[in-house]
Amino acid sequence: MSLESGKDQECLGYAARDPSGFLSPYKFTRRAVGSDDVSINITHCGVCYAEVGWPRNKFGDAMYPMVPGHEIVGVVREVGSNVECFKLGDHVGVGTYVNSCRECDYCNEGLEVYCSKGAVYTYNRHDVDGTITQGGFSTFIVVHHRYCFKIPENYPLASAAPLLCAGITVYSPMIRHKMNQPGKSLGVIGLGGLGHMAVKFGKAFGLNVTVFSTTINKKEEALNLLGADNFVISSDKQQMTALSKSLDFIIDSASGIHPVDEYISLLKIGGVFILVGAPTEVKLNPLSLITGMKTLSGSGAGGTKEIREMLEFCAANKIYPEIEIIPIQYANEAIERIIKSDVKYRFVIDIENSLH
Amino acid sequence: MSLESGKDQECLGYAARDPSGFLSPYKFTRRAVGSDDVSINITHCGVCYAEVGWPRNKFGDAMYPMVPGHEIVGVVREVGSNVECFKLGDHVGVGTYVNSCRECDYCNEGLEVYCSKGAVYTYNRHDVDGTITQGGFSTFIVVHHRYCFKIPENYPLASAAPLLCAGITVYSPMIRHKMNQPGKSLGVIGLGGLGHMAVKFGKAFGLNVTVFSTTINKKEEALNLLGADNFVISSDKQQMTALSKSLDFIIDSASGIHPVDEYISLLKIGGVFILVGAPTEVKLNPLSLITGMKTLSGSGAGGTKEIREMLEFCAANKIYPEIEIIPIQYANEAIERIIKSDVKYRFVIDIENSLH
Repeated sequence: MSLESGKDQECLGYAARDPSGFLSPYKFTRRAVGSDDVSINITHCGVCYAEVGWPRNKFGDAMYPMVPGHEIVGVVREVGSNVECFKLGDHVGVGTYVNSCRECDYCNEGLEVYCSKGAVYTYNRHDVDGTITQGGFSTFIVVHHRYCFKIPENYPLASAAPLLCAGITVYSPMIRHKMNQPGKSLGVIGLGGLGHMAVKFGKAFGLNVTVFSTTINKKEEALNLLGADNFVISSDKQQMTALSKSLDFIIDSASGIHPVDEYISLLKIGGVFILVGAPTEVKLNPLSLITGMKTLSGSGAGGTKEIREMLEFCAANKIYPEIEIIPIQYANEAIERIIKSDVKYRFVIDIENSLH
Repeated sequence: MSLESGKDQECLGYAARDPSGFLSPYKFTRRAVGSDDVSINITHCGVCYAEVGWPRNKFGDAMYPMVPGHEIVGVVREVGSNVECFKLGDHVGVGTYVNSCRECDYCNEGLEVYCSKGAVYTYNRHDVDGTITQGGFSTFIVVHHRYCFKIPENYPLASAAPLLCAGITVYSPMIRHKMNQPGKSLGVIGLGGLGHMAVKFGKAFGLNVTVFSTTINKKEEALNLLGADNFVISSDKQQMTALSKSLDFIIDSASGIHPVDEYISLLKIGGVFILVGAPTEVKLNPLSLITGMKTLSGSGAGGTKEIREMLEFCAANKIYPEIEIIPIQYANEAIERIIKSDVKYRFVIDIENSLH
């Protein structure tokens, strides 16, 4: 089953070397496939908003050289001796984390991303063996099989990539907060990688979906391509006021600092506002919550159990992220375009055909 | 059944006349008892933090003269012809609202405080008949029977008063967020009227309760009088850090602006932080919520169904607010002391024996 059992293997990736974040080719070593590991030939990797921050050391914890990428899909090329759930040739994905303690309550509940000892993120983290994890802007990856997910048959690999971070990050809180109740209403703030998936999931759940945007540019696509029911320019006070106390749920995927009180006022009594974007600060008037027993909640990615459920749900309901496929050589430009919100709605790197 | 059926009746109260908030004797008229009304001789009225803000026009909506007070208890002295649930001599209470539409979904669910058309607050609000509501710093009150609650037998009237606002304001979210699970852990920030009731309910629910305070002064009482399990000075970084990710719930009753991120970090994954105090602003780092799928929720008072449940729960479990009984002539000084947090833990005005 093994290509070169027992030996570390050389891998080619694109890495940032300093806080400029500029990505360039980089050769490094992946660990030999262990008995519980799966090795994956990466075919595609999505470009997440994290790729704007981490390579540029915006969180102050950058370790260079850094190979980013945590929306990884590909084909199994080797499995360890204990691995029974995957075989050579399987289509699989890897998301935002590649290890966890596998012993704590959260791990036992399939919520490994919230592992008591800290989930090991797919890149820029010390793995339990002391190595630093490197992400999916690379030709292959080796992970413990627990953090590897089967991509359903006939689901296009390129489309599957964004599900592993953008998809699960909105799917997880939507399920947890019971948004899958047909007839309820959902507001979606921001229409990027996360927001456009929230619209797609919302429609699949039978919700009435209103998109809030700062610009009219995405209106036609929001309504006609993504299937939203309403589109509102957030600066239009009249439209905003007309929606007062009308929504059951809001998913806020905007990553810049923005006021939330006016959006919370659009929620019905007991309404739920979910933060999935990560502005540096949220300010609110507590009366916004108190006078309507409303809830503000946060969520990041999801556990392995939810990821498997989501992948099946997307396949069964023919939900596909909207993507722009690019070669790895375009990655730096793609990140600049993400900063300018110039992407509809997720870049996916064609690793297979552009990284050699 | 009626004392002076059909006639409006003169009532004596203490009112604020201007934004100084200074309270002085004031004669005004209460409506005649309608067929669905109950008239109550007020024996006691609690002094809520609202009495600091409203009489001083801190919310910009003051209508003078204003008779405050919305923790009202007393004895039924007259009932309307349709009223079957109360009779003369019954011990009853009135809380923060005295009317609602009685037709909307929220009213139908017993959540009248969240009435679609707006609950009519007990003072400083236009009632549906156009009159301005006047509160419980007065000799009697007339209310629709729906907003009147039986005080269980043998429960001291003076002790019952704070339950109608402080009590229900913490009881309602505690029940809604399932804090009545023995063995779970609760943090309580601030130890005033609301906070001390959160401790008492927490212990009655079988929770492990930690009190957070800015000062050591209340430590002994928190532990020995109120029965808290732990007491932490919030400025003590070491004690705070030791509690990291240890609490299931936090109830924040502090009304001044204060940082919440460090408290949210004390919550376990999926933990719930309830705002019941109302600082003018709450600022937080969204990652505080996102990285632990944590929830910030608000709550104000509660519906009639919950209030009845809470009164029975307090009687059955012998839960009594800690009160300092004062004459109405001391009300202005009491409010000054509330501003200085110099109260253990609720002032209750002995209306019956001091207002003639």
